[in-house]
Formats: sequence, structure tokens, C-alpha cells
Amino acid sequence: MSEACNIDMIRDAAVRLSGHARRTPLLSSPFLDEIAGRKVFVKPECLQHTGSFKFRGGWSALSALDPAIRARGVIAFSSGNHAQGVALAAARHGTSSVIIMPADAPQLKINNTRALGAEVVLYDRDTEDRDEIGARLANERGLTLIKPFDEPLVIAGQGTCGLEIAEDANALGIKNADVLVCCGGGGLTSGIALACEADAPTLRIRPVEPEEFDDVARSLRSGRIERNTAASGNICDAIITPQAGDLTFPIMKRLCGPGLAISEDEALRAMAQAFLRLKLVAEPGGAAALAAALYRSNGIDGDAVIVTISGGNVDPTQFMRALDTLS
Amino acid sequence: MSEACNIDMIRDAAVRLSGHARRTPLLSSPFLDEIAGRKVFVKPECLQHTGSFKFRGGWSALSALDPAIRARGVIAFSSGNHAQGVALAAARHGTSSVIIMPADAPQLKINNTRALGAEVVLYDRDTEDRDEIGARLANERGLTLIKPFDEPLVIAGQGTCGLEIAEDANALGIKNADVLVCCGGGGLTSGIALACEADAPTLRIRPVEPEEFDDVARSLRSGRIERNTAASGNICDAIITPQAGDLTFPIMKRLCGPGLAISEDEALRAMAQAFLRLKLVAEPGGAAALAAALYRSNGIDGDAVIVTISGGNVDPTQFMRALDTLS
Repeated sequence: MSEACNIDMIRDAAVRLSGHARRTPLLSSPFLDEIAGRKVFVKPECLQHTGSFKFRGGWSALSALDPAIRARGVIAFSSGNHAQGVALAAARHGTSSVIIMPADAPQLKINNTRALGAEVVLYDRDTEDRDEIGARLANERGLTLIKPFDEPLVIAGQGTCGLEIAEDANALGIKNADVLVCCGGGGLTSGIALACEADAPTLRIRPVEPEEFDDVARSLRSGRIERNTAASGNICDAIITPQAGDLTFPIMKRLCGPGLAISEDEALRAMAQAFLRLKLVAEPGGAAALAAALYRSNGIDGDAVIVTISGGNVDPTQFMRALDTLS
Repeated sequence: MSEACNIDMIRDAAVRLSGHARRTPLLSSPFLDEIAGRKVFVKPECLQHTGSFKFRGGWSALSALDPAIRARGVIAFSSGNHAQGVALAAARHGTSSVIIMPADAPQLKINNTRALGAEVVLYDRDTEDRDEIGARLANERGLTLIKPFDEPLVIAGQGTCGLEIAEDANALGIKNADVLVCCGGGGLTSGIALACEADAPTLRIRPVEPEEFDDVARSLRSGRIERNTAASGNICDAIITPQAGDLTFPIMKRLCGPGLAISEDEALRAMAQAFLRLKLVAEPGGAAALAAALYRSNGIDGDAVIVTISGGNVDPTQFMRALDTLS
């Protein structure tokens, strides 16, 4: 059975993203190596436009649309990072975007999405059906839905991050390493896995999730898509999704695992290390992979580990909680 | 009269730094453009090894030493960033370093310098003569002094940052822009000025200093080296020096100005914007140029402005003060 995305689609996305998305580096610090017990390389997607890797997928999808269809506008559901990625990609394509966000999403993400030019529609997670709201708006206005992860063009866009990881790993001679990826619905994880399968096949791609929201780790163990019992209630909001995608899971099942899980405290401590040692701002969900590299090193193989910092959109009060772990 | 450094020395330093220093990008955010009233491009040297541009100058000087002399070790005076840059450059060259630091330097900088392998010697700014301490140690052990800015090889190393700015500005078509540089003794400012004179001659290089410590701005006005009255007492510790260097000032006099000055509150607010919009950790002195771009835009010309974030070595409590400006 063929998968929804492949390396050719990722390479095509890389051409469309060239000159528009940032080419992020691989960073390191001897202090992080010491904590982890091996060399740690960090892919800082918090430095991507809109502060997360999601701009890659948003741009990939928008740039591939038929211009006449794109001109009618796009719509997306998101608690934050996908929202901002799609909003900026739409604005830079000269079209409009409607973003449906939960009313309890981080205020910074709501404000940024509006400031990037999107029309933000808030809904109540407990009493309203976001799919119904989205379907009605899309229908009324002829908007194209840009899904956050279960969409081939979005997976291809996130996969460009994997092409860069593979290129840099090869240049540095890194062969025997786990690549830890902060994982929600699996768009970034599956995209990186496809890219590395082609360009750096000795690397092992492993999703990292919050404890009690480790549906992908459980799904990789059982071989079928498992769900999380809770829908919220963890500081790693960016990577909390009910379950992996129908398109992303088969790719992860073939190429990824086993999964890792980290605690909220470990996410906060990893944010503090990113502040101290890399001068980077990571959000809790964006620090999950670094947390696993630093504090779950017994579950990791190889003489080096590569981690994504997938986003940095964090409110100041949340960030101060992370800095408090240093004292 | 010939100057102490020139473009050929900078290009030679770039060859020595290749593969050792990080090639930092130019970052931007539509939110910063809106505050500044023009396009803002940020050169994030906080992402350089050891968290500041000082690694460039340290590596440039160490890598040019005769191996037999280098093997005896090096010595440096520094309140922090030069200390870390020299310490790591020495460690990676397999030699030892002694760093003379004021006892009231930020604790993070003292700890990091030690952790990078240096022998740290603390002195009391009020009662001890650091030059006497340094001369005695250098003499006893045969150590080579690496000056923080008034040294041709150090200026050449910092100038590699200017080569990168010029290359990226040319690629982006930026011609009519001020380049604002956080300025202490003038090593980075003079190095960037020489590099841009050669590779991007329409850019204007302008030092940025804290109010009441604006000796370089005053020196550029009077045409001769002026001193600061106070030696400390400003949160921008990284760029507080008694006066510009005998080697750096003639270069700045020919190529730079007029200078700009910013308040401590503006430095803190710029740090908060770097956190929010760029996901970068800047220290107060490292945020001075961004502060000028954002809050002193009336004193700036051009349709774009390029700013260095020269360092990110800030204690968590200081950083929280910056985040407090957002609420």
C-alpha cells in the first residue's frame, strides 16, 4: 500500500520553500553534552518564521494550491502554531485566512495569529463543535481547509526540516544517532522520517510525547492507532492531539520508534537549559525532545542525539516557571 | 597612517574560523518592523559558541599564534564574554587559559568560564590592580595575553561577523540601511565597519551604547578618545568599558557614526521583544542595538536597519526583569 507522502514530494516542497522558510542550523553546547552523556545536536525550529516548524507545512500547502482557489482564502483549525504558520503563509501569498482556535489557547498565540492578518474565530472546546463551525464557514465562503498534519502537502513541508537535518548530520559525520522529534499528530515526525530514510538512513527517528499523552508511543507498540484519554491538561499544549493521523501513522509505523515520554517538570527544565546554553526560547511542547535527550538518556542509543526544538511560542509567565527550575 | 586591521586580515580570519565559528543568519519579524517603522534585520550573535561574538575574536587570535607559544597557554582580562570566548578557543586548541575576572561579574559568566576549562582568577575592582595581577601571572608562566578588543587579530575575528552581514545584506538587496552595533571597546564595531567598507559600502555602521556610558559617541563627535566617568553601574555590563581602544578608535573615526545611546529600560524592553518575536535570549548589553532600532528610530536613517544581538549571557533573574516589562 502506498503512503500519502514520499521523498519526491518533500524535495518538491523544499523547492517551493526555498527563499521563504528559514534554513535553520544544528546547534550544540558542551554543557548539554555533559548532561546527556553524549553529543547533543539541536535543530532550532523555534527560529523558523512564526516561531515554529508549522510555517513549513503551511507554506508548502498554500504554495501548491491552484491560484484561483487560493485567492478565495484558506481555513485552519489550530490551538496556535499551525494557526500562525498558515496565517503568515496566506498573508505572504496575498490571500486571506480564517483560523478556528479554542478560546483557551495561549493568549500569545491568539494575538499573534490575529496580528499576522488572520480572522480568528474562537470556540468553546466543551460546548461547541469546531468541525461544524469550520465546515459552515468553508462552505459559505469557498475556503480551502489546510489540515494541521494529516495532509500530504503539509507532511511534505515538515519533511524539509528532515532534509536539512540529514544534510547537516552527513556533513558532521553523524551516523549512529537517534533523532528525537516532538510529536503531536505526527506531521513533523513522519516528514523527518521520510527525509532521513532517503538521505541519512542510519539515523533512527523517535517521537517524544508528554507522559499520559503518549498515544503515538502506544500506537507504535500495538501496531494500530491508539487514542489519548484526555484532550488537554498538560503544559505541552502544542503537541497534545487526540490521536495520530490516518496518513502520518502508517509512515511512523514503518520508520519510527520506539517512542519516548517526558514529564512536565522535565519539559520545564529542558526549556531552562535551552535558555542557558543555547540562548533559545522553547515552549514546553517544543522542549519535549530536548528533555528526553537530557533526562531520559538511558532510553536512547548512539554516540550522538539530534533533537528538534519545534516551537518557541510561550507566554512570559510560563517561561518564568521554567527559569524558576534553575534556582 | 595605516590602521591596525584591514580587510585582508578579516578574510584570513574567516578562513581560520571556517568550520569552527557558527555562521549566524539574519533574522526578522513583521512585529519588529511595525515597532521600528522600517524593516529590522537581526544578526543573532547570541547563537555564536559561548553565547556571544567574542568567540570569533578569541578563535582568530588563538589560531594565529605560533603553536609552541600557544602551547604555553593564554591569559585574558574580561568581565565575561571575552573570557568564555577565549576559554573555549583555548580548550579546542588543546591549550590552557587563565582568565582574570572582576569578583562582581555575573555569576553565570564566571561559572561558564570555569566550566569551559579556564583557570579563573577573581580580583576586587576597587582594591586590586588587574594589570599587575595579569602581568605577574603572564611573566611567571609564559602566557600570551589576548586583549579583548585592542588587538589586530581580535578585530579581524570580530570583522568576520561583518563579512556575513554584508553577504546577507547584498543577497537581500539591502542598500540604504544603518548597521547598529552594540559597542564597548569597539572591536566588533570597527571589524564590522572594515568588512562592510569592502563588501557593502553603502551601509552605515553606527555604535550603540548605554546612556551615560556613551564614550564612543562622544569621541566620534570630538574626534579624539573620550572616557566614561563611571566604570560600572549599568545593566549593560558587556559593553561598559572605560574608553575605546587606540587601535579601534581610528577605524571607527574614519568609518562609523554618529553614535546612539539607549536607556536601561529600553534595553530590557528590547530583550523582551527578542524573546517574544525572535525566540532569542539577549543580555542587556547585547540588546542595545535592537533597543535603538525599536525605540530610537527617529535617529536612524534608511528603509531598513540591521542590528547585532551581540550576546545572550544573562542571569535568569535579570531576564525575568526584562519579561516583566511585557506585563
